[in-house]
Amino acid sequence: MEMSVSYLIELLGVIVFTISGAFSAMQKRFDAFGVLIIGFVTALGGGTIRDVLIGYTPVSWMRTANLPLITLVTGILTIFFKQYIKNLKTTFIIFDAVGLGLFTMIGIQRGVAEGLSPEICIILGTITGSFGGVLRDILLNNIPQIFRKEIYATACIVGGIVYFLLISTFDKNIARLVTISLICGIRLVAVRYNLSMPKFYA
Amino acid sequence: MEMSVSYLIELLGVIVFTISGAFSAMQKRFDAFGVLIIGFVTALGGGTIRDVLIGYTPVSWMRTANLPLITLVTGILTIFFKQYIKNLKTTFIIFDAVGLGLFTMIGIQRGVAEGLSPEICIILGTITGSFGGVLRDILLNNIPQIFRKEIYATACIVGGIVYFLLISTFDKNIARLVTISLICGIRLVAVRYNLSMPKFYA
Amino acid sequence: MEMSVSYLIELLGVIVFTISGAFSAMQKRFDAFGVLIIGFVTALGGGTIRDVLIGYTPVSWMRTANLPLITLVTGILTIFFKQYIKNLKTTFIIFDAVGLGLFTMIGIQRGVAEGLSPEICIILGTITGSFGGVLRDILLNNIPQIFRKEIYATACIVGGIVYFLLISTFDKNIARLVTISLICGIRLVAVRYNLSMPKFYA
Repeated sequence: MEMSVSYLIELLGVIVFTISGAFSAMQKRFDAFGVLIIGFVTALGGGTIRDVLIGYTPVSWMRTANLPLITLVTGILTIFFKQYIKNLKTTFIIFDAVGLGLFTMIGIQRGVAEGLSPEICIILGTITGSFGGVLRDILLNNIPQIFRKEIYATACIVGGIVYFLLISTFDKNIARLVTISLICGIRLVAVRYNLSMPKFYA
Repeated sequence: MEMSVSYLIELLGVIVFTISGAFSAMQKRFDAFGVLIIGFVTALGGGTIRDVLIGYTPVSWMRTANLPLITLVTGILTIFFKQYIKNLKTTFIIFDAVGLGLFTMIGIQRGVAEGLSPEICIILGTITGSFGGVLRDILLNNIPQIFRKEIYATACIVGGIVYFLLISTFDKNIARLVTISLICGIRLVAVRYNLSMPKFYA
Repeated sequence: MEMSVSYLIELLGVIVFTISGAFSAMQKRFDAFGVLIIGFVTALGGGTIRDVLIGYTPVSWMRTANLPLITLVTGILTIFFKQYIKNLKTTFIIFDAVGLGLFTMIGIQRGVAEGLSPEICIILGTITGSFGGVLRDILLNNIPQIFRKEIYATACIVGGIVYFLLISTFDKNIARLVTISLICGIRLVAVRYNLSMPKFYA
């Protein structure tokens, strides 16, 4: 049961991030192959960096053979139904926020499973949640959005800190649910009210 | 014997890709060090990403001490003989196509040796064949060519699929030869007739 | 004692490189989170690439929990005291050169500890010393400086070669001190007299 919930969570996150990546690639006039790759990297890149840094190899998507297939199929569907998806902008922002919460939680748990300290686990959660987007932006030759746009990775960090505060007193599943909701909520509020981290110019 | 054929194949691929990388760097007015590094990364970067993802560390070029030396020498020779190499444009395209086929085959075999599934092996072959060029383009601050230009990585994928179809009935060496020739052939036809994957604009 | 000297050396290098990275990010108008991340990546990115390539995982900064904290604090202080630091340009160049020497030495020693050949150790030293800056430039969407500006990575390579020549006859600590000083010296002379590697245009 536990297993299947985690898996569904990851699945949903992968689908949402693939759509986001594939869309960005189509906006840069990439060819079909490029669109699928950027979708793949956006969805699975954060987890891949995390796995490589902690030495969990072969990396996760090589072990769960379904994930590459799911991004592939999602990417192809995104190409064919781009008109429809375009109109779902609000739906899309919500899904992206949910994906961010889910992926961050998955990253934190992998760190805990490896016996790493809370600080490192929070960093791993942040990498899992937001570095797929960094890789996407590097491949698209853009400055990574998360360093300049609305609050994004900061939501992961806040969520991660709250998670470790909660698990000292609450049940693990409650802590997880609160954390995912919090990250998702911070992100949605940030997009809605266009909130950014302060900027400094040297 | 087997050993030495594989090694010669890899050697040739490394040389060709080093020349390709070194040339691109000279076009961007990199200094001598930059030219050598870009040559190195173009030639060995794809295999390095593959090794890191599957956890085959220290990565291959640290185990076969000759490879770094060969890219270094090739890079230096490219700098000195750039005028001559420029005129060999056709020869060069052919070599690049051969390198693509060879590197893809090497990547697939590494995946098989690690006991990974055919889909993952095909991905590893594609990464080995074409992601050195992706790293080169990132370092040169260009959008990766393989996402927008003529068929490239697609040739690796098609070759990989054909390889796994063939080895169920044919001898492994025949399957290899056909695969390498096929990838090389697709690439050459794509360049000759300027064939691209379809593009989609969101 | 040995331990603490190495640690102090690393600490100083981390602080200097964090300041350098945070400054570059502020010049590109990154938000607070972006500034801290770029500082982190500049300081710890070279060692991270090295660790991933040799399979020393979880990577070093996950094992020495202080390092991420130190870059974080340094990054925050850099934001608050940017006016003061700006005026320290000369001091800063000196620190950066010292950091380059120290990090290169650390990288070489890690390679030796892993039983790798001198050539590979020199490459690892160069990666440790200069690839944090490469990652910084990629994230800032710039062409990596080390491929075009004054002598930088070349100093690491020369230092590495000298180190392996020295340890055959001299005491290890003397060899280290000479190597670090040499790298630091080459870099300072290069900046002072604006020395570059020769450039070639294809």
